[in-house]
Amino acid sequence: MTHTALPELISALPAGVVVTDPDILASYRQDRAADPGAGTPLAVVRPTRTEEVQQVLRWATEHKVAVVPRGAGTGLSGGATALNGGIVLSTEKMRDITVDTVTRTAVVQPGLLNAEVKKAVAAHGLWYPPDPSSFEICSIGGNVATNAGGLCCVKYGVTTDYVLGLQVVLADGTAVRLGGPRLKDVAGLSLTKLFVGSEGTLGVVTEVTLRLLPPQHSPCTVVATFDSVEAAAASVVKITGKIRPSMLEFMDSAAINAVEDKLKMGLDRTAAAMMVAASDDRGAAGADDVAFMAEVFTECGATEVFSTSDPDEGEAFVAARRFAIPAVEAKGSLLLEDVGVPLPALAELVGGVAKIAEQHDLLISVIAHAGDGNTHPLIVFDPADPDMTRRAELAFGEIMDLAVGLGGTITGEHGVGRLKRPWLAGQIGPDAMALNHRIKQALDPDNILNPGAAI
Amino acid sequence: MTHTALPELISALPAGVVVTDPDILASYRQDRAADPGAGTPLAVVRPTRTEEVQQVLRWATEHKVAVVPRGAGTGLSGGATALNGGIVLSTEKMRDITVDTVTRTAVVQPGLLNAEVKKAVAAHGLWYPPDPSSFEICSIGGNVATNAGGLCCVKYGVTTDYVLGLQVVLADGTAVRLGGPRLKDVAGLSLTKLFVGSEGTLGVVTEVTLRLLPPQHSPCTVVATFDSVEAAAASVVKITGKIRPSMLEFMDSAAINAVEDKLKMGLDRTAAAMMVAASDDRGAAGADDVAFMAEVFTECGATEVFSTSDPDEGEAFVAARRFAIPAVEAKGSLLLEDVGVPLPALAELVGGVAKIAEQHDLLISVIAHAGDGNTHPLIVFDPADPDMTRRAELAFGEIMDLAVGLGGTITGEHGVGRLKRPWLAGQIGPDAMALNHRIKQALDPDNILNPGAAI
Repeated sequence: MTHTALPELISALPAGVVVTDPDILASYRQDRAADPGAGTPLAVVRPTRTEEVQQVLRWATEHKVAVVPRGAGTGLSGGATALNGGIVLSTEKMRDITVDTVTRTAVVQPGLLNAEVKKAVAAHGLWYPPDPSSFEICSIGGNVATNAGGLCCVKYGVTTDYVLGLQVVLADGTAVRLGGPRLKDVAGLSLTKLFVGSEGTLGVVTEVTLRLLPPQHSPCTVVATFDSVEAAAASVVKITGKIRPSMLEFMDSAAINAVEDKLKMGLDRTAAAMMVAASDDRGAAGADDVAFMAEVFTECGATEVFSTSDPDEGEAFVAARRFAIPAVEAKGSLLLEDVGVPLPALAELVGGVAKIAEQHDLLISVIAHAGDGNTHPLIVFDPADPDMTRRAELAFGEIMDLAVGLGGTITGEHGVGRLKRPWLAGQIGPDAMALNHRIKQALDPDNILNPGAAI
Repeated sequence: MTHTALPELISALPAGVVVTDPDILASYRQDRAADPGAGTPLAVVRPTRTEEVQQVLRWATEHKVAVVPRGAGTGLSGGATALNGGIVLSTEKMRDITVDTVTRTAVVQPGLLNAEVKKAVAAHGLWYPPDPSSFEICSIGGNVATNAGGLCCVKYGVTTDYVLGLQVVLADGTAVRLGGPRLKDVAGLSLTKLFVGSEGTLGVVTEVTLRLLPPQHSPCTVVATFDSVEAAAASVVKITGKIRPSMLEFMDSAAINAVEDKLKMGLDRTAAAMMVAASDDRGAAGADDVAFMAEVFTECGATEVFSTSDPDEGEAFVAARRFAIPAVEAKGSLLLEDVGVPLPALAELVGGVAKIAEQHDLLISVIAHAGDGNTHPLIVFDPADPDMTRRAELAFGEIMDLAVGLGGTITGEHGVGRLKRPWLAGQIGPDAMALNHRIKQALDPDNILNPGAAI
């Protein structure tokens, strides 16, 4: 596929920015959601500067060409699925960062990986909290686009809580600065917050001003196994009602076993569920929190409880939890869910997922940021098996319906993308859908930006 | 002034909801900003239910009548200034609250006061952090409309960080639910966040779902006096770079003396500045923080440093800080500023305000949420003195220009309202202004909602 105006774009940008090599194009068709409906883009554009992004969008608006913004391609909802005849605009080469220790902020280009941001600010004695499990491979631009969460969010909040300012390029190529390095600023509408989580549908983020914190204190960790999912879930509300843990994670039996297969660290393969919790409150307070959580776990019927104030020992369990997705992925392809519910419905959600798995004869492993009520049911399937693929897709939808039925959300932190879009209206209803469309129409009247994604 | 369609509105609503008594109308002309340009409304409408708000807005849209939403009328920027021929829609009679201890949320109607929300959730062992100085008299709806801040925000964030969901009535009378009691939810655009801080220009909030925290630990407090503003300001960045205090407040000499005039608590009248800081980290950690802050204050040249772990003793200083606005107000009418700057510019901002005060021969007292870089210069004037009033107004504008010149904001937590609107474009620039207008136009095409305010 080609476009008569493409040479104009190629010549307007520095050599190498626009890529049309078919092999390279193929590698930008999908993100980690592996959307089977992915098209082949006209070109992949990899700008290094805001001005180049502006040129791409001016060209796209002039020629009515769809632009799919892409970070590191680690999205799990198909937010960066390429479209036939469209452009993929990858921000991977925009990688500058400036850290200001006095204002405790960093100005970051979108292509830098989350782990690189963490490392760069740590070198200045500061901390950027949000920590998606994929933090070593996902970009900060993608984190902003999806309002990404992570493990420490139960205490420290999600990406939007750390975004003080943005530079965004609108569909017509205008570059706008929103917010800035001011900790409080209510001048004008909260547009910075509107763009966070907009999944590339309202503009392309070319610069992010992040709020940073003083370093986290070394956490104390407690791990507990349970012989029922309900017992583990019951412990969650007992904990979050009383204290603020810095982590409160859940793994089911399938995840425990998949991790143990790979890491062989001596996890209890007979357990129905495992909780990994931590407190980073300083000194005695952290140890007190862990003692309290250990007590709650025991009261709720934990079969084994292990506490440690040794950071390395604690980190081993956190690493096990982080490793759950790749470990389960070793068993087949994944449809990766991201449903959330109000905390009291957590056990019912996990139980309902087990029923759906049984009905469709599928392995569905559930891991969860339990303290946020945000779960990741991992649906294992073989894409070469059409019947199994169909059953996996059915389960994918039924899990979202289940979550919405429990007063929950179809996506807690991964975004709607393309895979979940059919379920969005069912959650938010026609009036909120109409409101989403009015905003989209106002900002991108030609529907150039990531059409078909998110809203 | 009257309107031929008003009887239609009166008969559509329960008896007493629409008020046209001239004396009552007069009392709704202004909020605490005492905007001299205030008009007289056609009617004041005080609905008790979302459906009544919908009826008001349907009527207003049909007849193209402006609606000024109003909370408790404590706004400081003229966001609730009445318009001639318009309606004032007061949410003061919408006062329900339901607390859910399991999800740790509260569903609140907008008319409840901030202090009433705090009290109602405290009865369930929970805590709603945002604490504007006016918390005893301001409403939660007004807090949402302005994205209000307060003293503990330096550690705990502002109103938007606690709003999980909203019910809003749009200009055309549609009631939309946004978000809900889910701690993480990225389904659709971040519309909840867009409405927070929109100052009644996009819709009328009729219900708020608030995130709550476990109770705050009893804080340790440290108070220090300085013989220069610069020394006090220097201490701020040294503290926030290392620890997370739960309060970091600043008062200048005029504020200290005004408070001492009233409270006679033995404050050092000769001091140029006073810092009131606290840490609510548990046990030894809080005391450690306070010891660290005391050390920083001393290093920065504090003339006197006093620390206490006694909550009542600490609260006396916090009360002194909160009392600063009424104390200074005893000296005359106030034009109350709300400018913010990046932290390193704090001393320059305070110094610049002093110069402006001198140039215009005015008393301008500065108090500040120093840890957020958010200051409240209080311009004292006599509205019966036209020349002084003119000088106060000049100073009001010059302070905003000064803040913007230092990379700051014209409003950190009070909102733009009507008083600050002429300065908004100067801060955010024409492209961001245009973006604000596109959103406004998309959601309120007839400009019914709070016209002339905020954007």
